[in-house]
Amino acid sequence: MAKQRLWDKGGALDEQILAFTAGEDHQLDARLVAYDVRASIAHARMLAERNLLSDEDCDAICTGLTALGEAHARGEWAIELAEEDAHSALERRLIERIGEAGGRVHLGRSRNDQVLAAMRLYMKDAAESLGAGARGVADALDGLAREQGTIELPGYTHMQRAMPSNVALWAQGFAAELRDDAAGLTRAATRADSNPLGSAAGYGTPGVDVDRDATRAALGFSEIQEPVTAVQLSRGKAEATLIFEIALLLGDLGRLAADLLLYYTQEFALITLPEEMTTGSSIMPQKRNPDVFELIRGAASSPVGALVECMTLTTKLSSGYHRDLQRLKAPLFRSIDLAENVTGIMAHALAGVRFQADRIDLDDSLYAAERANELVIREGIPFREAYRRVAADLASKTGSGD
Amino acid sequence: MAKQRLWDKGGALDEQILAFTAGEDHQLDARLVAYDVRASIAHARMLAERNLLSDEDCDAICTGLTALGEAHARGEWAIELAEEDAHSALERRLIERIGEAGGRVHLGRSRNDQVLAAMRLYMKDAAESLGAGARGVADALDGLAREQGTIELPGYTHMQRAMPSNVALWAQGFAAELRDDAAGLTRAATRADSNPLGSAAGYGTPGVDVDRDATRAALGFSEIQEPVTAVQLSRGKAEATLIFEIALLLGDLGRLAADLLLYYTQEFALITLPEEMTTGSSIMPQKRNPDVFELIRGAASSPVGALVECMTLTTKLSSGYHRDLQRLKAPLFRSIDLAENVTGIMAHALAGVRFQADRIDLDDSLYAAERANELVIREGIPFREAYRRVAADLASKTGSGD
Amino acid sequence: MAKQRLWDKGGALDEQILAFTAGEDHQLDARLVAYDVRASIAHARMLAERNLLSDEDCDAICTGLTALGEAHARGEWAIELAEEDAHSALERRLIERIGEAGGRVHLGRSRNDQVLAAMRLYMKDAAESLGAGARGVADALDGLAREQGTIELPGYTHMQRAMPSNVALWAQGFAAELRDDAAGLTRAATRADSNPLGSAAGYGTPGVDVDRDATRAALGFSEIQEPVTAVQLSRGKAEATLIFEIALLLGDLGRLAADLLLYYTQEFALITLPEEMTTGSSIMPQKRNPDVFELIRGAASSPVGALVECMTLTTKLSSGYHRDLQRLKAPLFRSIDLAENVTGIMAHALAGVRFQADRIDLDDSLYAAERANELVIREGIPFREAYRRVAADLASKTGSGD
Amino acid sequence: MAKQRLWDKGGALDEQILAFTAGEDHQLDARLVAYDVRASIAHARMLAERNLLSDEDCDAICTGLTALGEAHARGEWAIELAEEDAHSALERRLIERIGEAGGRVHLGRSRNDQVLAAMRLYMKDAAESLGAGARGVADALDGLAREQGTIELPGYTHMQRAMPSNVALWAQGFAAELRDDAAGLTRAATRADSNPLGSAAGYGTPGVDVDRDATRAALGFSEIQEPVTAVQLSRGKAEATLIFEIALLLGDLGRLAADLLLYYTQEFALITLPEEMTTGSSIMPQKRNPDVFELIRGAASSPVGALVECMTLTTKLSSGYHRDLQRLKAPLFRSIDLAENVTGIMAHALAGVRFQADRIDLDDSLYAAERANELVIREGIPFREAYRRVAADLASKTGSGD
Repeated sequence: MAKQRLWDKGGALDEQILAFTAGEDHQLDARLVAYDVRASIAHARMLAERNLLSDEDCDAICTGLTALGEAHARGEWAIELAEEDAHSALERRLIERIGEAGGRVHLGRSRNDQVLAAMRLYMKDAAESLGAGARGVADALDGLAREQGTIELPGYTHMQRAMPSNVALWAQGFAAELRDDAAGLTRAATRADSNPLGSAAGYGTPGVDVDRDATRAALGFSEIQEPVTAVQLSRGKAEATLIFEIALLLGDLGRLAADLLLYYTQEFALITLPEEMTTGSSIMPQKRNPDVFELIRGAASSPVGALVECMTLTTKLSSGYHRDLQRLKAPLFRSIDLAENVTGIMAHALAGVRFQADRIDLDDSLYAAERANELVIREGIPFREAYRRVAADLASKTGSGD
Repeated sequence: MAKQRLWDKGGALDEQILAFTAGEDHQLDARLVAYDVRASIAHARMLAERNLLSDEDCDAICTGLTALGEAHARGEWAIELAEEDAHSALERRLIERIGEAGGRVHLGRSRNDQVLAAMRLYMKDAAESLGAGARGVADALDGLAREQGTIELPGYTHMQRAMPSNVALWAQGFAAELRDDAAGLTRAATRADSNPLGSAAGYGTPGVDVDRDATRAALGFSEIQEPVTAVQLSRGKAEATLIFEIALLLGDLGRLAADLLLYYTQEFALITLPEEMTTGSSIMPQKRNPDVFELIRGAASSPVGALVECMTLTTKLSSGYHRDLQRLKAPLFRSIDLAENVTGIMAHALAGVRFQADRIDLDDSLYAAERANELVIREGIPFREAYRRVAADLASKTGSGD
Repeated sequence: MAKQRLWDKGGALDEQILAFTAGEDHQLDARLVAYDVRASIAHARMLAERNLLSDEDCDAICTGLTALGEAHARGEWAIELAEEDAHSALERRLIERIGEAGGRVHLGRSRNDQVLAAMRLYMKDAAESLGAGARGVADALDGLAREQGTIELPGYTHMQRAMPSNVALWAQGFAAELRDDAAGLTRAATRADSNPLGSAAGYGTPGVDVDRDATRAALGFSEIQEPVTAVQLSRGKAEATLIFEIALLLGDLGRLAADLLLYYTQEFALITLPEEMTTGSSIMPQKRNPDVFELIRGAASSPVGALVECMTLTTKLSSGYHRDLQRLKAPLFRSIDLAENVTGIMAHALAGVRFQADRIDLDDSLYAAERANELVIREGIPFREAYRRVAADLASKTGSGD
Repeated sequence: MAKQRLWDKGGALDEQILAFTAGEDHQLDARLVAYDVRASIAHARMLAERNLLSDEDCDAICTGLTALGEAHARGEWAIELAEEDAHSALERRLIERIGEAGGRVHLGRSRNDQVLAAMRLYMKDAAESLGAGARGVADALDGLAREQGTIELPGYTHMQRAMPSNVALWAQGFAAELRDDAAGLTRAATRADSNPLGSAAGYGTPGVDVDRDATRAALGFSEIQEPVTAVQLSRGKAEATLIFEIALLLGDLGRLAADLLLYYTQEFALITLPEEMTTGSSIMPQKRNPDVFELIRGAASSPVGALVECMTLTTKLSSGYHRDLQRLKAPLFRSIDLAENVTGIMAHALAGVRFQADRIDLDDSLYAAERANELVIREGIPFREAYRRVAADLASKTGSGD
């Protein structure tokens, strides 16, 4: 079967240009097939409801799309380069399967709103899944706090031992931030939570009276995006917001990894790691390296880059759809996959972290602030005065103010 | 008067190092004075409530701080380099004014949570003010839609004339996105909306039983940030979130400016601008340049850079306070000021934009999609078939498929 | 065959952690196989020269590596996940092929300097190839200047018609910048042009007297990187420099695309594109869209993101090797591949661009600056005075100062 | 005195718009005054040489500009907001001083090439000065190596003690990278090293036969930038290249600071710092904090942001001058000033760093790689075999393979 592209009017497209413009979409789009099936079915049912599609055609379309989606999920077909993307692939294969009725689903929509509907449904799912991943790491930290929480730790400021702390305070601090990241991911999904269907190419569907609220309800969007011209203008904002929150999440995980790497040094020696979590050196037999935490730490830089990629992509674009927007997918998908990967491995790896209670000895000087506080309360002197007396006392004991 | 720094124990700090570490804080911090006054008063009252401060001292502190804040607002004093920042300046001047009681306000807090309290109060105000600015531009666009909304415009996709549109649709699309930005700014403030007071240096206030809910309520924070170790870990996240939303806002304004610049070209000629809004050329007497919109367009790149600056700053930092965090202020303040500036000027400049109704003539081909839709509905043929017929019809008229 | 990792001392590595730490390296590293073969052969020959390896073993190693490299190039084997990367894969397969002698090549080097040697050889080749690509586009622009160069064009400033120009000036301006980018790529290669071999893990090869100049000469590096501690410190700088220059190159190509997209609008209508280079719309039969140039324009944002990713990755790392550095590969390779892709397609697509001589009519006002200049020279008046007279003259003709 | 803007034809510019478009240029431009004086004198002399300016006018112009430059350097005048920038300020004041002849210097140039000439001269100086700053830190490291170089240090990989090293190797590794940064800054200046004068607004000087080589030679540029259309297209590339190299420089300094901060922890305790280089805590009297190195570490993020700001600014701009480009100045100047500041303070602070010879004890295991190497050479076994034997030996001694 010749692969005729949907917009084809007969002129052959230069093969190099086709390869370039299709880019990696046919690979990236695998994850969108199921969402396009869902959105296309909602659109078809709305058309039937409005008598713009016969019930018979609607049934054929819905049954056909469902079957295609299931076959794709089973790995029975994949999007081919010549099909360009998930949407063209599904439409072509639907027509192949149920005949010309398959072409009727395109009434009242354009590839522009179709792509966006699938992307938004995917982003909402991704935000939820990543939020669960972040909470999973927080739960692992809670577990660590439960089991080893009473072990004392120095509390650092400026990387200097400053105040008394413990494993529970340390772990729960990170857990709180990861739950903040999960909440941020939920807020981020707001920008993906309005229905683009019915905006078509960005200027509505003149001549076809679509029911935007019907597809909204069917797909679970909170609202209809209005006016239709806002839809394409908003491209990239939901993507950037999601990547931004991923960057905060991976930033927090990277700092957690940085702490563990510091604590795992021979000098700090606050934790041990099980052998099966560390790797060896190719030339230094005595070493066990905590690569897993280094790669988690390093992962934080990736979504910062992806965010810049996204935001630079849309900058200065005039209003209306531009093909440039296709390039939003790669940094978004890359960021989501990395975050899924990193949250999973961090939750897994935390189970192996053991704080070394017997190695930790909090120096008396860590209690200086507490003693100054007590002096203030006991003697009613200003804090500054108490501070100077404790400092003088410490200096006399150690021979130095440091 | 010798300027003794709060933490000074007698050793003279190297002058070069003081200048470097104080940096530009003494200038940047001017905007924080009022917020520190507010937070310090809330803290003092809480201490008095807990009997950690006498009512007399509390009154002296509150009166003194209020007076200092008012004097600062009137420009009667400014933070000096040797004072380093707003917090040290206020404390020093308070002691100077009311005597040693001024030092008692520092009980149960550290500069770390003090700075953060002022910063968060400021960020909450800034987010609200910027949201109002964004809505102000949206209102200006609504005005434009009201007055010139019925003027027809081509709706573009791929920068090509695609479908019929009009000034109202164009203006309201941007207005909707600006209101989305305002909503995003409100959501961004969430991360600044929890009380850091009581976390002190990041490990609480051993020996001093502070009432974190009292300061929370007095300052209008939605919640207490817990545990205390989360407070310093979260540094930079509220800042980055606010800058991110500013970047989206300036991104939208930049795209609005890009449209206006395109429409102001002699070739598009969709709009005119009043002479007092354009500048001349130094060598081409015939020209009137729309510099104001170019500088708005260019402003979008600034917060993207500031965002990277912020996010790169906190990456890989181990837990606990680090002085690096001081460098969050400059990109944040710069972004806020720029956004205030740009929203103000855009709302102002939009008043001068006139769409040229008489220059705009929508070609018949823009109605092709509508005609294809009608064919589908009238004849019950699939959209693809209707599409091909309209295309053939257009090609026969123009001698070309383009 | 059991895949024993080189550093394996018997402890089984957690499978999830292996999958995470190996990451996508086994896929990314395909392009490094040939370079590792080259560098390993140079290292083996140096060892033999120093009598640290028998000539027989050296021959077996070199023959074996060459054969493995050729087999890889023919697609006969690929790096497997369990092998982690190109270097482990080659060493394991070499031992499999020639026996224990295969293990002798690792004397006097570590995976750290081995990886870097292959990466730098690759980066030098990539810089050269991308430079050729940039010059290829410049040549295509020269061709355009030769064939259509005399067609007049308005010269724009502020997107406003300003001065007379022509296709040659337009095309050669971009060609000059692309050649500047090619020169920048050559300069960028400087940072990849020093020999890392002999630095081993970053602290040299105590006990093994390697000849760093021999491997330098064999591999064509300009110098030896010294001291050995600089080698790992420098990681990421060559990568970032190359990505930066790619970003400038794609930035220039993006601006060239932006011009073409503007000139292709119906309003500017300065150029036409052949049908086989444009794509159709899925709902607007009359349209032909210049997607290829939109995707080139959009490509410029990708290396800016990759650059941030690289630079954020190395920031704050203490000295010495860290596994985080593995994450430099993906953004680098992605940027190189994209730039190869975009330069190729731009050179190809420029061949289809036709300036429409008959559509272009330079308004008299574009000659205002020239006339002012002539007035100055003829009448000896200051330019400002001439400027005011020409302006007044133009205003009287058009009834307006604009 | 009324401040008439150069391009003024009588229409009053909206005051808000003037304030917005002039922006902070009148402040930023102070550093450009001296360069504009130099470039304007070169231009005037060229005009006189070509008989486009009388010798008398030329002398008056050159004398007047020199006097104005000197007065500015002495702080006798500053650019005012209404003058917008350095160039307008100088021209207005020159006319005020020498009469209408002052207006004659504008023949054959535009503000576009005038601004660029000053900017490039400044950038060349800045690159040289920053290179000297980088070498200054390298020299300080050399001093450290001379004085404390023989003190043994652990060489780390993965933050784990790996191999024997010493202070000289540590310091010289950073010194080499800083000299690499200085070399990079020199290469970066290449993009600022071509003469823009004669390109005027971007399309040459029709009607005025300027001698571009004369101004090139007078100003010390290596070449003439050709064709004239390349000049404005290249805007931002020299700026970005300089900021990029600054980012590498501050990146290296940040990593040096990160090492020092790690070594200054009580746990590593490899170094001490003099009291006058550390600051105290506001609530913990026992602490001395290394703020200076934290602020150096944090400084690395600023130019990464500035780079993104610059590169995002020029992306997608069509060819020809745009006012957006004015926004290149702030991130560039900010980056240069910060780098001057940081190199200066780092060279100063390094003088206070003392490695604690008596605290450092290299564990026997650090010599494992060396011993494996010796085994290979002594017994002729493959490295992998020697590695396994040394590993087994170490494990038997310590009871563990870690």
